Amino acid sequence: MRPSGRDLSEMRPVSIETGFTKHAEGSCLIKIGDTHVLCTATIEDRVPPFIKGSGLGWVTAEYGMLPRATNTRMRREASAGKQGGRTVEIQRLIGRALRAGVDRVALGERQITVDCDVIQADGGTRCAAITGGWVALRLAVNKLMKAGDVISDPLLDPVAAVSCGIYAGQPVLDLDYPEDSEAGVDGNFIMTGSGKLIEVQMSAEGSVFSRDQMDQLLTLAEKGVGELVAAQKAATA
Amino acid sequence: MRPSGRDLSEMRPVSIETGFTKHAEGSCLIKIGDTHVLCTATIEDRVPPFIKGSGLGWVTAEYGMLPRATNTRMRREASAGKQGGRTVEIQRLIGRALRAGVDRVALGERQITVDCDVIQADGGTRCAAITGGWVALRLAVNKLMKAGDVISDPLLDPVAAVSCGIYAGQPVLDLDYPEDSEAGVDGNFIMTGSGKLIEVQMSAEGSVFSRDQMDQLLTLAEKGVGELVAAQKAATA
Amino acid sequence: MRPSGRDLSEMRPVSIETGFTKHAEGSCLIKIGDTHVLCTATIEDRVPPFIKGSGLGWVTAEYGMLPRATNTRMRREASAGKQGGRTVEIQRLIGRALRAGVDRVALGERQITVDCDVIQADGGTRCAAITGGWVALRLAVNKLMKAGDVISDPLLDPVAAVSCGIYAGQPVLDLDYPEDSEAGVDGNFIMTGSGKLIEVQMSAEGSVFSRDQMDQLLTLAEKGVGELVAAQKAATA
Amino acid sequence: MRPSGRDLSEMRPVSIETGFTKHAEGSCLIKIGDTHVLCTATIEDRVPPFIKGSGLGWVTAEYGMLPRATNTRMRREASAGKQGGRTVEIQRLIGRALRAGVDRVALGERQITVDCDVIQADGGTRCAAITGGWVALRLAVNKLMKAGDVISDPLLDPVAAVSCGIYAGQPVLDLDYPEDSEAGVDGNFIMTGSGKLIEVQMSAEGSVFSRDQMDQLLTLAEKGVGELVAAQKAATA
Amino acid sequence: MRPSGRDLSEMRPVSIETGFTKHAEGSCLIKIGDTHVLCTATIEDRVPPFIKGSGLGWVTAEYGMLPRATNTRMRREASAGKQGGRTVEIQRLIGRALRAGVDRVALGERQITVDCDVIQADGGTRCAAITGGWVALRLAVNKLMKAGDVISDPLLDPVAAVSCGIYAGQPVLDLDYPEDSEAGVDGNFIMTGSGKLIEVQMSAEGSVFSRDQMDQLLTLAEKGVGELVAAQKAATA
Amino acid sequence: MRPSGRDLSEMRPVSIETGFTKHAEGSCLIKIGDTHVLCTATIEDRVPPFIKGSGLGWVTAEYGMLPRATNTRMRREASAGKQGGRTVEIQRLIGRALRAGVDRVALGERQITVDCDVIQADGGTRCAAITGGWVALRLAVNKLMKAGDVISDPLLDPVAAVSCGIYAGQPVLDLDYPEDSEAGVDGNFIMTGSGKLIEVQMSAEGSVFSRDQMDQLLTLAEKGVGELVAAQKAATA
Repeated sequence: MRPSGRDLSEMRPVSIETGFTKHAEGSCLIKIGDTHVLCTATIEDRVPPFIKGSGLGWVTAEYGMLPRATNTRMRREASAGKQGGRTVEIQRLIGRALRAGVDRVALGERQITVDCDVIQADGGTRCAAITGGWVALRLAVNKLMKAGDVISDPLLDPVAAVSCGIYAGQPVLDLDYPEDSEAGVDGNFIMTGSGKLIEVQMSAEGSVFSRDQMDQLLTLAEKGVGELVAAQKAATA
Repeated sequence: MRPSGRDLSEMRPVSIETGFTKHAEGSCLIKIGDTHVLCTATIEDRVPPFIKGSGLGWVTAEYGMLPRATNTRMRREASAGKQGGRTVEIQRLIGRALRAGVDRVALGERQITVDCDVIQADGGTRCAAITGGWVALRLAVNKLMKAGDVISDPLLDPVAAVSCGIYAGQPVLDLDYPEDSEAGVDGNFIMTGSGKLIEVQMSAEGSVFSRDQMDQLLTLAEKGVGELVAAQKAATA
Repeated sequence: MRPSGRDLSEMRPVSIETGFTKHAEGSCLIKIGDTHVLCTATIEDRVPPFIKGSGLGWVTAEYGMLPRATNTRMRREASAGKQGGRTVEIQRLIGRALRAGVDRVALGERQITVDCDVIQADGGTRCAAITGGWVALRLAVNKLMKAGDVISDPLLDPVAAVSCGIYAGQPVLDLDYPEDSEAGVDGNFIMTGSGKLIEVQMSAEGSVFSRDQMDQLLTLAEKGVGELVAAQKAATA
Repeated sequence: MRPSGRDLSEMRPVSIETGFTKHAEGSCLIKIGDTHVLCTATIEDRVPPFIKGSGLGWVTAEYGMLPRATNTRMRREASAGKQGGRTVEIQRLIGRALRAGVDRVALGERQITVDCDVIQADGGTRCAAITGGWVALRLAVNKLMKAGDVISDPLLDPVAAVSCGIYAGQPVLDLDYPEDSEAGVDGNFIMTGSGKLIEVQMSAEGSVFSRDQMDQLLTLAEKGVGELVAAQKAATA
Repeated sequence: MRPSGRDLSEMRPVSIETGFTKHAEGSCLIKIGDTHVLCTATIEDRVPPFIKGSGLGWVTAEYGMLPRATNTRMRREASAGKQGGRTVEIQRLIGRALRAGVDRVALGERQITVDCDVIQADGGTRCAAITGGWVALRLAVNKLMKAGDVISDPLLDPVAAVSCGIYAGQPVLDLDYPEDSEAGVDGNFIMTGSGKLIEVQMSAEGSVFSRDQMDQLLTLAEKGVGELVAAQKAATA
Repeated sequence: MRPSGRDLSEMRPVSIETGFTKHAEGSCLIKIGDTHVLCTATIEDRVPPFIKGSGLGWVTAEYGMLPRATNTRMRREASAGKQGGRTVEIQRLIGRALRAGVDRVALGERQITVDCDVIQADGGTRCAAITGGWVALRLAVNKLMKAGDVISDPLLDPVAAVSCGIYAGQPVLDLDYPEDSEAGVDGNFIMTGSGKLIEVQMSAEGSVFSRDQMDQLLTLAEKGVGELVAAQKAATA
């Protein structure tokens, strides 16, 4: 029934290649099917003004899409002179998600910026960015711990994200672009490795949904995040 | 237990004054406690390029906050030269929410722009904007129907929104600013008059939550939206 | 002869509702006929760099119009990415006008920002903004004096403004929008409570005028400002 | 008494060199003392959208200052990314002033853009720009008439401008920079060759003035504009 | 003598992986040592206004750098709100270089946009972008020819680029970052497969050079471009 | 053969009028035929952050064109909201060129900004800007030396620039606009008074060139720069 022939609860193949770029303190290229996102983590010894002197650390994120990551070329945001509303929404989401998994006292007064740049898009780029972003963050924190700059591990539990939606009347896991563009209802579920929820965003563009349907999607999301967390652990072991 | 002395499932007082400005095709000043939002609906005989010639209508929204709507003065976005990320996120949310309740075929090829400007803020401005925005939209559509420009009613079911969250360990309905700034978990629930969900956005800034907690908040939200829809109906009767 | 049926030297009804918003140190909603402007005054313990350390205070103003304050919707300046030329001109005028009535030594080294946001427009918005802006300023200064932060009153004489013009060949007081859009010659007169001039801006878009006509308009302006100052005093008594 | 040793009612030396640049349809370098402004007029066979098809012409103006026209270097507006409030105010004023002297029916459906760029500033740049801008406009219109594109002369009466103010308690004509920076009250007076008023802008930064003082300044302005119009006529004879 | 141990006239290893992304009409990841640039070519059936209706085609380029392509993180240009001067300079250079190798009549009235995004930087990114950009362009044109949309090959001769400079007093080929940051004189040489010059940019930041030195660098550049053209041909065979 | 009737190796007439504006520390109006550029040099006691405390000076440049410097009016960059790519490229070039002739230790920790504004354009504006910019710089440095603020002369050798190109198959010196717009190959050559090269930019828009042709143009450039340096010396003697 799904365009890709996948089962309703079947993820696309997941691969995570760490160390994809040499300058960043942590980096990976994550591939969820044909969605490819390059994630890098940068450590800096400064924090935003509003927490200066607090002893707390900060994690933030930026998101971008290369102009031809998509089927038709999109205008380059740097040339348009501003980030679009969608970009701003997504990078705020990634930042909140990653922060939820960080013990900011243990991190100490420093900032880690996670850049997520979509090389190729086929649906679910924000979820791939969160999942891959956490891997880049994990690698950067490992470097801090190895150097003795951080003593107690500030990353207690992995953070990963997956999309689910109602496609052709059925709840499905991990929507690719053909499904995403048809689904009336879809959502992003951000969870921890131990199964807690961090953020749920369900939206029905021009449609509505029931509490029952929401429950079914949550169950699918728990399965998907479980598989993603396993991939994160394998990549950073 | 709540700073305002309200019960856990008690909304703030709601009032909706229609016709607050004379030029707009529909307008109201909605007050949810100390949160006051002016909503106006503008009808135009043009639609965005991507639906030109389709026969379908469009509903969109813009959101703003007067500089001194808040406790300390915020920089005016027009002077800063761009809308902040929060503003963009909120106005996209309002637009999606209102469109979910519109039969775009019945509306015909015209655009209605709903402007929501916060006069005074005390938490929950985006929910007040959606609830009041629907009233302005309802009044504008009434004008179209009265003039015979629209035959079949494109607004089948009211749309309203409420926030809920975990405050001091307890699920509470309709957070005001003191609660909002303390709550680790909170969400916005957008629903129809008949109890269907349109959008759910739950977020745990620096925290996590369980499926059980999510269920409790959904139950509170159903109660709150019910009361808001009653107020909408009374104001537009 | 006037579209509204008013006499040549008759103002529209004036009302000033103080305390319209709760956060600002001073606020009012001023209504000059169908022109409604919300004015708020914000006190901050900082001054612009060019007077830092001088012991002098500063008063500045910003002006905005809600998108649907007018008969057809105007583009939101925050979304356009900049304030238009007309907006910039007006807010500079308001700032100069209010500063002319302030003893900046008595105010002490602090800044008061007066925000004037037009809720509904029907001609004369800049004059209403100045007149209402002074009321907000007065209320904010009262708060400073009550708290003992300011000893000697820095507001010696009220500041108010009114427009006059040549409509259908006749000098008229307080133009509303139908008159304003037809008048070849019109001007704004900013004066003190004791009848001194602060600023005169007379302009003949595509026309000319004589010194005699200018004199007649000045006489009308003196009458109008007198009535506005009486309303200011009543509102802040 | 004046820093320059001039009499109270004495203008600075005026010179107007026409044809200063070769590409523009009309151009001049006007010098009012040490204030030097290059004015060019450009004719285009298009008009702004709001008068398209009306048969009417349009005259507009833009104003700029070279970064080192002043005593200390000002930031280049092109590099700052926007025109400052003062620039916008001035170029709107120049446009209105020039339009007041144009028969837009006789001009026909075309646009003339007058660019006024300050090469060296010593007070009164906006008045010099209006006076020189009219000369550039006159030369461009002459070219249209010579080519038979315009039959009836659309420039019936010259337009010129001068500043006056209260300096050291005395009304003075044509303020230079040392006077301008000290004067509590000053104004710009735009008039026609036949002595009619087009625009009056009097302002008292941090001060006030009486109707008597205003009258005295008007008398000075009439004298100054008379001399400027004579120079305009000599330059374009 | 070189930090990398290379001979004076030795290029870094070159690799070109075609088809790196699936949506673009042509794409490759080019690696010149540790400089990695993703190049994509997009075909569109529209041309810039200035050649509309001329029957001629157009080739243009855009250039970007991911924030952490470099040793320290650079601010994202989309978030800064504009492309920096260096970016603008480089993308104009790439466009001119590629157009020099295109028969725009044979291409027909269509536009090809080549996007060059630096994934990892180690000196010479603009040269890598031109060399890889030509490969992406070649692949996109192949697709047009295969589909019969273009009959006669518009790409007569490959275009490639290399940098040379004076490092530690010696002329060297293909500067990497440690050399580039030390070299007083360096230049970019863009040439065709048959050895003709397209563009030469030699610059001595804070230094000077002689005609003899320029000749030596040109000889090195011819060697380097020869090797790059061989790699281009192998990749697109 | 040349539209102007000049010999292949003949420059246009050169004139340099120093002291063209009174405020700048150094200024000149340089005319290369019908290309007229106003150059001013501003001395400031601050340097960019990246050299603060180094004891080194800095020289930078900005470039602009008045809207009607050209045959058809160009949009004012201040009003367009940003400097175009061509402007940015040129001003970076001017800055690099001038810095190459400066002993930054001898200059001491101060910044000189050279503004080059094109009053009238007829080809070769960037070369005229560099040549005239050096004169303004020389005059400003003279002032510093006369005041004893700088002891050892930081300007050892003049800097001048000229364009050459292949026009109608022949190498020609100092292209004017009619030649520039036709030439397939042209370049800018920046040299010192003693004949050393600072920067070479040769470009073939839609064409190619040989090493022999490049040599011929270099020989022409040496002749042209020689004449320009003589004019610089005469003007600043």
